[in-house]
Amino acid sequence: MTPAPDLNIVPFVSVDHMMKLVLRIGVETFLKELAFYIEEDFRRWDRFDKTPRIASHSADGVIELMPTSDGTLYGFKYVNGHPKNMRQGRQTVTAFGVLSDVGNGYPMLLTEMTILTALRTAATSALAARHLAPKGADCMAIIGNGAQSEFQALAFKALLGVDKLRLYDIDRTASEKCMRNLDGLGFSIEPCRSPEHAVEGAQIITTVTADKQFATILTDNMVGPGVHINAVGGDCPGKTELHPDILRRSAIYVEYPPQTRIEGEIQQLPLDHPVIELWEVIAGKSQGRRDDRQITLFDSVGFAVEDFSALRYVRDKLAGTGLYEKLDLLADPDEPRDLFGMLLRCQASLGREGKGN
Amino acid sequence: MTPAPDLNIVPFVSVDHMMKLVLRIGVETFLKELAFYIEEDFRRWDRFDKTPRIASHSADGVIELMPTSDGTLYGFKYVNGHPKNMRQGRQTVTAFGVLSDVGNGYPMLLTEMTILTALRTAATSALAARHLAPKGADCMAIIGNGAQSEFQALAFKALLGVDKLRLYDIDRTASEKCMRNLDGLGFSIEPCRSPEHAVEGAQIITTVTADKQFATILTDNMVGPGVHINAVGGDCPGKTELHPDILRRSAIYVEYPPQTRIEGEIQQLPLDHPVIELWEVIAGKSQGRRDDRQITLFDSVGFAVEDFSALRYVRDKLAGTGLYEKLDLLADPDEPRDLFGMLLRCQASLGREGKGN
Repeated sequence: MTPAPDLNIVPFVSVDHMMKLVLRIGVETFLKELAFYIEEDFRRWDRFDKTPRIASHSADGVIELMPTSDGTLYGFKYVNGHPKNMRQGRQTVTAFGVLSDVGNGYPMLLTEMTILTALRTAATSALAARHLAPKGADCMAIIGNGAQSEFQALAFKALLGVDKLRLYDIDRTASEKCMRNLDGLGFSIEPCRSPEHAVEGAQIITTVTADKQFATILTDNMVGPGVHINAVGGDCPGKTELHPDILRRSAIYVEYPPQTRIEGEIQQLPLDHPVIELWEVIAGKSQGRRDDRQITLFDSVGFAVEDFSALRYVRDKLAGTGLYEKLDLLADPDEPRDLFGMLLRCQASLGREGKGN
Repeated sequence: MTPAPDLNIVPFVSVDHMMKLVLRIGVETFLKELAFYIEEDFRRWDRFDKTPRIASHSADGVIELMPTSDGTLYGFKYVNGHPKNMRQGRQTVTAFGVLSDVGNGYPMLLTEMTILTALRTAATSALAARHLAPKGADCMAIIGNGAQSEFQALAFKALLGVDKLRLYDIDRTASEKCMRNLDGLGFSIEPCRSPEHAVEGAQIITTVTADKQFATILTDNMVGPGVHINAVGGDCPGKTELHPDILRRSAIYVEYPPQTRIEGEIQQLPLDHPVIELWEVIAGKSQGRRDDRQITLFDSVGFAVEDFSALRYVRDKLAGTGLYEKLDLLADPDEPRDLFGMLLRCQASLGREGKGN
């Protein structure tokens, strides 16, 4: 029998390989190219099979599956959110994902997505801001300086040219970590003593805190006219960061309303409060920023299509790099109906080796 | 800095390792023990977070995610169903799955599940039949002799003592393959020229064909009193195997009604047609077989809890075997909030190696 091609093999991108891929491409280039893939997919929004993520909530956190398909490719991400993890030396959010061929259902790529999610979240934020932030914005406040903060900073630099940062975190060491990590990457950075201090003079305000609870990181009086708010941290039921009065003054842009109404800042508003879908702005079907006094708000929760774009991007960049392992993930008997025969042949070959391991 | 324990590592069971695990335990023992785990989980049915599987349908097939949780562990399976795959030398069904810790959301196990699904489907069928088949049944017809058939045969032997098989497949070579594979495993096997011939004298009828369409494998006149029907092949919208008249004469047992009403044989019946949930029978809350003239029907579609049981079982049996690889799947920075710093340190270490790979 001729051995079949490696139908059993699925390429796997480990954390180590993902880091090497990102570094080889360069973080800012990676963010720019990834934003381009996301933009491409948002432009063909109606091609996607969309559903709110499937969440399994517990007292400590949430585990979610985020599938989508464009009819040719299928992708899903597994992601958890456990705020208390940090205290045990674990990530609040970890993720991995799979890209598959819709035609035969076979996975084509399995990859870590903890790092990739940080990159796609930042790329989506910057992509939204390119349509919504005031023209020429170069100064951003980042409230919450945890794992996502540097990625946000670099995406806004890569896509919008933002190079002035005003950092605030309830924990000073987080801001110090962020400053240290961004040192030498072309920013002028001001550490701030309060959220009020951080937003002074910022045309863009990014909120990206981690507590799983209703919090009020921004109150109404802190948000002046013309500001763009990039609200990243509020992303599950019961977790918000903005005072509802801010929402009422803002033009609100969301990824996928059925999901954002449950998870986003707008869970604080009536279900019929008007929102604009980001894809419509990107596809030129809706207006972005109207004038320089409007407050725009991107109520980011993260949607499956962005992960799909990220999986597509990684697949395309991976070719020829060798930055993956080959996983024996799929049973591939010589004769497809003969799954059991495969077991028998394995047994026979173990017998020939004279041992049973 | 002290290196943390291997928080980044997830054990991975490849197809090769799964085969070795099954062979080391023994197929029939594996099926019996797995059925015990499934039984355990069906007994505590109300502890599970249940949802119909999340299906992405296309012209060629379906890709599904099947998550569930008991509040302590979380499991999900990815599985596809593509009937045309066989013609291209691929499996109709392939699968893999993940078991996670609900407390911190971290995956604890990633495993192939193509082989494992075949085993859990067979174990569930036999478990149901132990409550539903006529007492002392020792003869089973298997209509459809593809990849699932040998597993069904062995599960019914291991759990019920069935040792007489009557095989029929529209493709004779499939029956021959099944006979060859089961040779020497303690069965007396009769290959049959038609479905009518196959069901003669069988107390249990297993239908397990693969076409994605409404088919009538069994017509009403073929099913005599007292028979137990194990309907495995009809498992998605538009795919059934039994004439509806059979359903109307049978006591129908299902795994999870909201899913079976969509996917099972009962999609041919009104939504309010009475069915009995298998877990109720197993937990002693509902009656199994009532008398020796009743026709019982297990309308099997496969439910997430069974995969959860299979993942639990594999995790428990894996310890000490070495039959897994260690996957670097989860980003694990020294300081949890410092995901970006991890990238920088990777860059620094590549710099020290004097190259950028």
